[in-house]
Amino acid sequence: MGGPMALNLLKSDHKVVAYDVMDAATKAIADAGAEIASTPSAVAQKASQIITMLPNSSHVEEVYMGKNGILESVQDGSILIDSSTIHPASSKKVAEAAAAKSAFYMDAPVSGGVGAAKAATLTFMVGGEKEPFEKAEKLLAHVGKNVVHCGAVGNGQAAKICNNMLLAISMIGVSEAMNLGMRLGLDSKVLAGIVNTSSGRCWSSDTYNPVPGVLEGVPSSNNYQGGFGTALMYKDLGLAQLAASDMNAQTPLGASAHQIYRMLCEKGYGSKDFSAIYKYLSESE
Amino acid sequence: MGGPMALNLLKSDHKVVAYDVMDAATKAIADAGAEIASTPSAVAQKASQIITMLPNSSHVEEVYMGKNGILESVQDGSILIDSSTIHPASSKKVAEAAAAKSAFYMDAPVSGGVGAAKAATLTFMVGGEKEPFEKAEKLLAHVGKNVVHCGAVGNGQAAKICNNMLLAISMIGVSEAMNLGMRLGLDSKVLAGIVNTSSGRCWSSDTYNPVPGVLEGVPSSNNYQGGFGTALMYKDLGLAQLAASDMNAQTPLGASAHQIYRMLCEKGYGSKDFSAIYKYLSESE
Amino acid sequence: MGGPMALNLLKSDHKVVAYDVMDAATKAIADAGAEIASTPSAVAQKASQIITMLPNSSHVEEVYMGKNGILESVQDGSILIDSSTIHPASSKKVAEAAAAKSAFYMDAPVSGGVGAAKAATLTFMVGGEKEPFEKAEKLLAHVGKNVVHCGAVGNGQAAKICNNMLLAISMIGVSEAMNLGMRLGLDSKVLAGIVNTSSGRCWSSDTYNPVPGVLEGVPSSNNYQGGFGTALMYKDLGLAQLAASDMNAQTPLGASAHQIYRMLCEKGYGSKDFSAIYKYLSESE
Amino acid sequence: MGGPMALNLLKSDHKVVAYDVMDAATKAIADAGAEIASTPSAVAQKASQIITMLPNSSHVEEVYMGKNGILESVQDGSILIDSSTIHPASSKKVAEAAAAKSAFYMDAPVSGGVGAAKAATLTFMVGGEKEPFEKAEKLLAHVGKNVVHCGAVGNGQAAKICNNMLLAISMIGVSEAMNLGMRLGLDSKVLAGIVNTSSGRCWSSDTYNPVPGVLEGVPSSNNYQGGFGTALMYKDLGLAQLAASDMNAQTPLGASAHQIYRMLCEKGYGSKDFSAIYKYLSESE
Repeated sequence: MGGPMALNLLKSDHKVVAYDVMDAATKAIADAGAEIASTPSAVAQKASQIITMLPNSSHVEEVYMGKNGILESVQDGSILIDSSTIHPASSKKVAEAAAAKSAFYMDAPVSGGVGAAKAATLTFMVGGEKEPFEKAEKLLAHVGKNVVHCGAVGNGQAAKICNNMLLAISMIGVSEAMNLGMRLGLDSKVLAGIVNTSSGRCWSSDTYNPVPGVLEGVPSSNNYQGGFGTALMYKDLGLAQLAASDMNAQTPLGASAHQIYRMLCEKGYGSKDFSAIYKYLSESE
Repeated sequence: MGGPMALNLLKSDHKVVAYDVMDAATKAIADAGAEIASTPSAVAQKASQIITMLPNSSHVEEVYMGKNGILESVQDGSILIDSSTIHPASSKKVAEAAAAKSAFYMDAPVSGGVGAAKAATLTFMVGGEKEPFEKAEKLLAHVGKNVVHCGAVGNGQAAKICNNMLLAISMIGVSEAMNLGMRLGLDSKVLAGIVNTSSGRCWSSDTYNPVPGVLEGVPSSNNYQGGFGTALMYKDLGLAQLAASDMNAQTPLGASAHQIYRMLCEKGYGSKDFSAIYKYLSESE
Repeated sequence: MGGPMALNLLKSDHKVVAYDVMDAATKAIADAGAEIASTPSAVAQKASQIITMLPNSSHVEEVYMGKNGILESVQDGSILIDSSTIHPASSKKVAEAAAAKSAFYMDAPVSGGVGAAKAATLTFMVGGEKEPFEKAEKLLAHVGKNVVHCGAVGNGQAAKICNNMLLAISMIGVSEAMNLGMRLGLDSKVLAGIVNTSSGRCWSSDTYNPVPGVLEGVPSSNNYQGGFGTALMYKDLGLAQLAASDMNAQTPLGASAHQIYRMLCEKGYGSKDFSAIYKYLSESE
Repeated sequence: MGGPMALNLLKSDHKVVAYDVMDAATKAIADAGAEIASTPSAVAQKASQIITMLPNSSHVEEVYMGKNGILESVQDGSILIDSSTIHPASSKKVAEAAAAKSAFYMDAPVSGGVGAAKAATLTFMVGGEKEPFEKAEKLLAHVGKNVVHCGAVGNGQAAKICNNMLLAISMIGVSEAMNLGMRLGLDSKVLAGIVNTSSGRCWSSDTYNPVPGVLEGVPSSNNYQGGFGTALMYKDLGLAQLAASDMNAQTPLGASAHQIYRMLCEKGYGSKDFSAIYKYLSESE
């Protein structure tokens, strides 16, 4: 994700200093003109607008607050845009540490996947104060299409995990309804057409239908390759459950969706698009 | 439902002969010019295009195939449009009996509720042969806005129960996501706005949001009055589960939705709009 | 099931007249001295104590109330012991028809499987009036070990499906707890030992543990062969759901268990012992 | 819990030095002869066998590893018995810190509640090395009846949360089965009797039945007062879900049980015995 985003910044005439634990990951952007730094701290010395994209809370805390981390050298007034999808409580912790160093941390997780990263059409859900948000908005306009201010720090993560929990529930629901309808004798395109013009209408049905042959250009019509991986959806569903437990918020279907995506990972579907739940649900042996 | 439909037929210059077990139900349409018959059989003697709207499979089987039922006197070539929401297997049984009497039975369950019945904007999901469908389509154009041919007899029921199972899953999912997001600090309108322009987009969020204050003119902003009752959604979810069992179709979230709506009925929500699941899920005592 | 039961009746000096749709099924008992009749009605002419064992409600209704069925020729005062596992409402229907012919029908579904049928150690859960029950009790003592009067007709089915719904929930629960504990580092025998002397104690753990190697002589230690098949448990769970829907009884875990056993059938586990849910839950690919 | 345990140690002639954040909590044992220390560290200076009982991981980490904590002054070779129910990973962390100070930490969560604490009949599920376990076993014999070595540090927590997850699933299952059976017409004692001598047999049915009137001396026959509170079961179910997520262990019913107990807490049942799920499931409004 970070690579395509850096490339889009270079293309829009920004000077880019980059760091990644994996040298291979930085090669492509080095070739395109980025300067490669040796640590996150070294990046912070040279850049006052920083975007991070990391897998987990522990990585984020390490890269910002650990040895040779961003906050060791961060310049006053820097805006720190963290596009990782992590626990909202983690974002708040890093934001506090950044504020103590006169820097402005914002959680800005994305939606859209690698395709949207390349095409600069990502959606960013941002949590942070007004002024830093406005600066971030300007910068992110070069790597995304939609930059939404969701409220205080942590609210970007909250918006993303709530949307993705609903998305998973929706995708499983469409898979169940399509499979049932088809077993009852309905043609898949006829049923999708009815749902899409009725109260069952949703993105999972009208834009990303999981049944092969209903829509072109979506993973279900390409053997579930590409898209948004099952393992990534499983990660997001886990973050939603942690947040729900913190808040004692009832999530009966969200908890079931989390279990279902865990099962898909355990049964070898981890690298397939998350719409492969349809394949799993509909196949009989 | 039948009353408003009959009134719309009278308004569009059709001659109407009607029957209902409850005299009170026929009074309004008698006043508007309909002739009242004493049995379903008497209706069949006078009308060769018949619309039925009944609560359950057993009522449908009684009214068509029972003593003094429609099929006792049905005229050859009659089209029989059954807008009840019942088990697909039941519709097929009545269709067979009708065919034996040279009449054409179609299942044509509706979507839209009492409001759409009055406004003649109902959606009909029809199962039956091509020619009878075309005749039904002409007639139903006066009581509805959308008349969809779903395939053979039984496919109308199938389409409806699949859509409504997905709708229930969707509504519960939106309720869970909104409640979680709001407890995490997100403003309800901001979150709904994000979902509605993201992959979580669905009718339950953008057209019928269950959170009070997000949309005007929907039951959630009117104390969950009116709309599509919880008890009716519970009925449809039960039909979906019966069909899924017949087909051994996996419906983990559909089965949970069925249990959730049963609980709502048991806890006194039966007459509230089905979006009241949000109220139930979000309230703490 | 019927075969071993008939053999045990012959062994205990009863005269047996038998009928089965499949000739092959009656060969073994014919060799052992039973008379083979050509229809259920023919059996009823010769026997005033009849035991039936059939797969579904429709079979039971056909065999008792259909053409050449038992009730066509049943002798006054006959006791009719139906050991099929079917919908309680179905049993009540047949009981009514039998009463109209002065015969006494009882539902008497069994527990124990083929092994207990051979060893004459079956448990019968009987619904019916006191006197017929007492006669049935005498007869069934030759084919079973436990004959319990559960109340009126239908209560035998009710007891069985309630016990089996709880059994399925229990077996899935033990599988989840054992898998989790073992992944956390607990030895399977140590964990089973703790559970069996704590509040988690249950038959599924102390008598039929689903983890290979914990107990000898149970299907889990024999590649899940034999025992009580997944497809049969799935059938019983479906009957429990139908009954729960009739009564609007909340069964969140029972409904999930039904979906889980449906999935096992769809994924090829139908002929394995129902404890194979452990294998399914614990395996990663 | 700690109070009754300390009293039993005093009764069995042990010298007791105690600390609690709440002075009121230590008054009763001070009156019975215990010496009250001012910090956990002060306790560690005087005692080389320490038992801790705290609500959460954060409390445990603070009391052992925080300022004025046990490890600040712990004597070489001390055995540290932590009877808190916390995340297994937390126990391992504290054990490591204790080992660095030549002390032996064991997780030893209990089963049995306040009643068993008073009667010295608690069950301890212990994780730790062999020699420290043998010393702990001797000491705990004065406050409990069952001291089980579950394996390495963390295994005590693992055993407890696995047992309690199974217990919750079991209790919900019994509640569903009893409610369904009673609605179908079965007498509650008759049904419990059948289950208890069949494959549905479990502690939740034969020792702690949730249906009022089936057993005497259990919370269901005392308006669900006393016993093991719903809020405490909810806590344990949350720990089970965290552990399952760490291990990617599939727990479909465990996750549902967690949601159900969350709902009970949200609906005001937190202080009632956990068997009150029967009351919730069976009541219609």
